Amino acid sequence: MTRNALPESTMPMVPPRVLLGPGPSNASPRVLQAMMAPMIGYLDPDFMEIVEEVSHLLKIVFTTEEAITMAIAGTGSAGMEAGVSSLLEPGDTAILGVCGFFGERMYDMAQRVGANVVILRSEWGKPFPAEMMEAELKRHKQVKLIATVHAETSTGVQQPLGDISRLAKQYGTLFMVDAVTSLGGTKVTVDAEGIDYCYSASQKCLGCPPGMSPVALSQRGRQAIKNRKQKPASWYLDLDLIARYWGPERTYHHTAPVSMILGLREALRMLVEEGVDNRIARHKRNAAALRAGVQALGLKLVVPEPHRLDQITPLWIPQGVDDGKVRNALLREYNIEIGRGLGQFSGKVWRIGLMGESSKSEYVLALLSALENILPRCGYEVPVGAGVSAASASLAAAAGAR
Amino acid sequence: MTRNALPESTMPMVPPRVLLGPGPSNASPRVLQAMMAPMIGYLDPDFMEIVEEVSHLLKIVFTTEEAITMAIAGTGSAGMEAGVSSLLEPGDTAILGVCGFFGERMYDMAQRVGANVVILRSEWGKPFPAEMMEAELKRHKQVKLIATVHAETSTGVQQPLGDISRLAKQYGTLFMVDAVTSLGGTKVTVDAEGIDYCYSASQKCLGCPPGMSPVALSQRGRQAIKNRKQKPASWYLDLDLIARYWGPERTYHHTAPVSMILGLREALRMLVEEGVDNRIARHKRNAAALRAGVQALGLKLVVPEPHRLDQITPLWIPQGVDDGKVRNALLREYNIEIGRGLGQFSGKVWRIGLMGESSKSEYVLALLSALENILPRCGYEVPVGAGVSAASASLAAAAGAR
Repeated sequence: MTRNALPESTMPMVPPRVLLGPGPSNASPRVLQAMMAPMIGYLDPDFMEIVEEVSHLLKIVFTTEEAITMAIAGTGSAGMEAGVSSLLEPGDTAILGVCGFFGERMYDMAQRVGANVVILRSEWGKPFPAEMMEAELKRHKQVKLIATVHAETSTGVQQPLGDISRLAKQYGTLFMVDAVTSLGGTKVTVDAEGIDYCYSASQKCLGCPPGMSPVALSQRGRQAIKNRKQKPASWYLDLDLIARYWGPERTYHHTAPVSMILGLREALRMLVEEGVDNRIARHKRNAAALRAGVQALGLKLVVPEPHRLDQITPLWIPQGVDDGKVRNALLREYNIEIGRGLGQFSGKVWRIGLMGESSKSEYVLALLSALENILPRCGYEVPVGAGVSAASASLAAAAGAR
Repeated sequence: MTRNALPESTMPMVPPRVLLGPGPSNASPRVLQAMMAPMIGYLDPDFMEIVEEVSHLLKIVFTTEEAITMAIAGTGSAGMEAGVSSLLEPGDTAILGVCGFFGERMYDMAQRVGANVVILRSEWGKPFPAEMMEAELKRHKQVKLIATVHAETSTGVQQPLGDISRLAKQYGTLFMVDAVTSLGGTKVTVDAEGIDYCYSASQKCLGCPPGMSPVALSQRGRQAIKNRKQKPASWYLDLDLIARYWGPERTYHHTAPVSMILGLREALRMLVEEGVDNRIARHKRNAAALRAGVQALGLKLVVPEPHRLDQITPLWIPQGVDDGKVRNALLREYNIEIGRGLGQFSGKVWRIGLMGESSKSEYVLALLSALENILPRCGYEVPVGAGVSAASASLAAAAGAR
């Protein structure tokens, strides 16, 4: 049998990409290998030990002893909706402090469940000011929940949580945090910040394929769900039902996505082996190199200091340069994917993600080199080699500092 | 480096099971291998071709040219909720004809979205009588949707769809069908039966890990969603938003679960390679052998002819035999999982699943042999070898008949 005679369908036929967009990031080969384990029942006693291990590893990653930690069978948006629809009842008042695309998504979901939702919008590219939240809290008698996005993937902004956390305590509201892009790249401290519900996603800083949403639910959050007057609109994303499977009861809810849970376990093991703080430092180092490089190329960063995320770096697309042409050349000539702008940043911004397995110095250097090659063809003159040199120097300096 | 020095976490540590329960069934190694492909972006043009291929293969499997076919990022229950919450608005009248655990789940979901739900319950272990549905349709002015479960996993009953399909046409209602356990093991003909929404699951007769819900949505079903007065309660499971990603618009909804979609594609390719009718015949052959075998052991089938599913065979647990002890011995001594009874069948019934990769003659023979060994220790005398002989003869007869 010649090589060409291999059955077509057994070949992967998936081109090898360097994923430097907003996610999915590259998945670790170790994680993909773990997903190849044979199938096992979702109530098999041996699988229950694996579920228990995932729960335990998530406690480390979310920095919590008190919360229930579990993984929802869906993407980060499923984690978002599980929180919104389980914590809010029709008529409950919620205040969302947002300045990006994903805050708007939360608003859409909260309206669908019939909550009385106040959305506070601030400028894209800057964090949400806690004072706006405080002013609004004063205007309402009873607020059930306040929420924000820890790391806005659409703008590249890191939201400081301290002041909002204090407000939640002061006004006795539940506190929900979107940690989809932050978990594993920025410290997430569920107990210390008094977060009642925190949700993330498997495919960003955790290095696992998309399809799971790891979450932490505080005891107070769970009690609030138990105290509801009516059942949540969603059965599939009912956090109390999900917690009965992840908790000691082990009650059947839906068939757990076995392979994804095996992948997530391996990804969390890798994170804990590397050390959460070491992984955060790696994200910091590579993001600093990327910023040094793109600035040396004359490109402008969207987010001012000190609010920059290390996970995702938005750049203004230089005037006259064709967004799609550059992204297409990166993909077709270099197998590199970068992200386009979302919402009001559409067509104006590129978003470079360096998350999890994709946060590697070699990818930073490869991207800068590719941009140096592509941009002049697209009407933007760059000082050749400057970007790579700046990034390389930044990485060397960081290495020296260690 | 000695073999023991391999890092613990790179080993699968998942025991190899023969999964003969209600699902997940065993996953095909070819499917697991396909899931190991490197990660790719969910809007990458090369991935869009893969999404298109999945859609095309699903049309063959659902026997539809007209419907939109797609895979929802969740388990079969997510597919169920996507239908219930997208097709029904608060106040809409729906009639569910059910006789099993999963019909009750549909009822729970429909109540949560605020629909006016009429549930018609009939005897567990028998199909739902269409006359009951007709009587109820006459009593209501305007019924938006009628629904039933094609293959009730909890009872092992196959529901004939013809009469209910005719009623849907006659009364002008939408028609929703749960094909979680039927798809790939019983013919599902979406266009011919006029099904407006049909949902299934990846982990039963398709031989893929759990975590995806393949669905078919008729044009009329989609139009009904577009005509809604208010948005569905669920954003994540909003079929119209999901269809905009799976359709020509390719609009970002949530991050598609890339590895699961790659696995599903391979599973669907394998199904189409085998031939849908051939796979159904395989399910029929192995189920017949199982029935011959367990009856030769003196065990009694729950479902009378001609309503038996080939996917799952429920047996009455003989009087005095400890349910858990037998299932535990099968698992611990033979690595075989069978299903326990759900709902009113809890503790009274075992459910033997032979679906997808698990529908193999060698598994039938192994299970019967294991039962012959275990049952006498658990207080039930069996004629040794009788079950295996009967199954073996049944398989030989079927082979001769081909």
